[in-house]
Amino acid sequence: MEVVFSFFPPADLREQLINEFPDCHFQFYRKISEAEWKNAEVIVTYGEDLSEKIIHSSPRLRWIMVCSAGLEKMPFQAIKEKNILVTNAKGIHKIPMAEFTLGLMLQHAKRYPELADFEKQRVWNKKLPLQELAEKEVLVLGTGAIGSEIGRLSKAFRMKTSGVNRSGKPVDYFDRIYTFQDWNIALGMADFIVSVLPSTPETRYLLRENHFQTMKDTAVFINIGRGDLVEDKVLLNAAKQNQVAHIYLDVFEKEPLPPEHEFWTLNNITVTPHISAMSKNYLPRAFEILKHNLSTYITGRKDFWNVVDLDRGY
Amino acid sequence: MEVVFSFFPPADLREQLINEFPDCHFQFYRKISEAEWKNAEVIVTYGEDLSEKIIHSSPRLRWIMVCSAGLEKMPFQAIKEKNILVTNAKGIHKIPMAEFTLGLMLQHAKRYPELADFEKQRVWNKKLPLQELAEKEVLVLGTGAIGSEIGRLSKAFRMKTSGVNRSGKPVDYFDRIYTFQDWNIALGMADFIVSVLPSTPETRYLLRENHFQTMKDTAVFINIGRGDLVEDKVLLNAAKQNQVAHIYLDVFEKEPLPPEHEFWTLNNITVTPHISAMSKNYLPRAFEILKHNLSTYITGRKDFWNVVDLDRGY
Repeated sequence: MEVVFSFFPPADLREQLINEFPDCHFQFYRKISEAEWKNAEVIVTYGEDLSEKIIHSSPRLRWIMVCSAGLEKMPFQAIKEKNILVTNAKGIHKIPMAEFTLGLMLQHAKRYPELADFEKQRVWNKKLPLQELAEKEVLVLGTGAIGSEIGRLSKAFRMKTSGVNRSGKPVDYFDRIYTFQDWNIALGMADFIVSVLPSTPETRYLLRENHFQTMKDTAVFINIGRGDLVEDKVLLNAAKQNQVAHIYLDVFEKEPLPPEHEFWTLNNITVTPHISAMSKNYLPRAFEILKHNLSTYITGRKDFWNVVDLDRGY
Repeated sequence: MEVVFSFFPPADLREQLINEFPDCHFQFYRKISEAEWKNAEVIVTYGEDLSEKIIHSSPRLRWIMVCSAGLEKMPFQAIKEKNILVTNAKGIHKIPMAEFTLGLMLQHAKRYPELADFEKQRVWNKKLPLQELAEKEVLVLGTGAIGSEIGRLSKAFRMKTSGVNRSGKPVDYFDRIYTFQDWNIALGMADFIVSVLPSTPETRYLLRENHFQTMKDTAVFINIGRGDLVEDKVLLNAAKQNQVAHIYLDVFEKEPLPPEHEFWTLNNITVTPHISAMSKNYLPRAFEILKHNLSTYITGRKDFWNVVDLDRGY
């Protein structure tokens, strides 16, 4: 059975697979353009390199394992037509992404960048009014694995937590859940608004100027989900008009963010390079899912982890 | 009954006291040198301005409320001789100080300062290897209210937690407790070493060069307790020789830290101006303790909060 990788994992992970699955024939390539995928039964990918052509010209392809969570570049129509199983690495992002988010919240509350500026000038300034996270309110857009981990950590920091999801159903670690129909009141109360939403037709440009007008001018907006949640011009306007106190962006409509983009230059916008999920533990964790699913596949069981709903796109 | 303040609280807090304790005569001064303390039965202070002379020439003085936690500048000998009750604001520091500590740990793990440098250059660099707090080990020197709040938050971040105290007795949120006799092994395992120790004869210069040699060269040392825990030259040496990866100092033997001090200049030492406890909630929380103790005092009950042990000095 042919398992084709469109990326090249480190030696220890490759060896693990080869040793644990002697009946599989693993082929590791640096990129899809170098890969011989025509006989692949399984393709392991980061999910950004598959085309309809590849799907249609791989007659044996039965399963695609995406070692990532964002699936917006997958050729879902072709995959559905051929009834191919898709699983992803959902869930392994929650720890680094939630840590990254709380780190940004603390950076804002404790004003470390300003403290660093005073340090550079050798100025002992005790007058900066630091804030606490305790008692503040965080609103998380998207209450899946990542959002709920952010909720859990925020509760540990004694914060009030609200979440927004489609159903409005209660989720652990959230004091209140809103839907996208009734979230306006929550937007107006939150001190931190964090989006972990994926990119879907429903989330595209979901957040509009009126939403930023609703937010408190002391609020902080953090987007670690997908860049097409808000149009750039809405964010720029919110920053320039101080509709909120600070905007942290880890994701963008166009990545890498072009050097000439105005986001880089504004004091109350912080740009990071789509890095919130980055962790040394990332690929080892993804491989745990891959190995579980491989053994499920080989033995003909049905207990796959992280099966993607091809209609919903996540 | 005369209650003399050697600092000037904001109007809302002054009014609260005056309204809730109509039988007390409150006098608020900006500093002790302006205060008429000779008839004081109670002195409310930040604890850095009392002298033996003041104690000896206040014949009615029965109780000193210190709206702070550090007591090393208190004239304890004179206070003991006159059998004066001392209470402090211990416990109200734990929330901001623990938040500040976790914020520094995340700042190190997520490399926000380096990400900010790349942002200034408009460079999209996804290659910075970010770390997680999860699975890392934190060692907290001092397991009282502040240390234990750091332990609690660290557990929420899925960290391993160890603490050091005098008795070696178990403390909530710490997987293991060491004493100052057997802590060497813990020092060698920790990824983060955080000191919240007060200044006492026992803690002065407790941490020496051999301790830094024991630490991992990837470890981070954070001191938010008192500056005389380590001699400056030991810290400078540890930083210059890369005995640890980073040193965060919020407290110093001499404060304010003089502008010519070498601490300001080293890349792997971060200086903050004794600010970790700073919070808008600080004085309101201290006044909750003051009001509880005032009503205890007035009614002749004995359930004072935060009575200071004059022999131990905390």
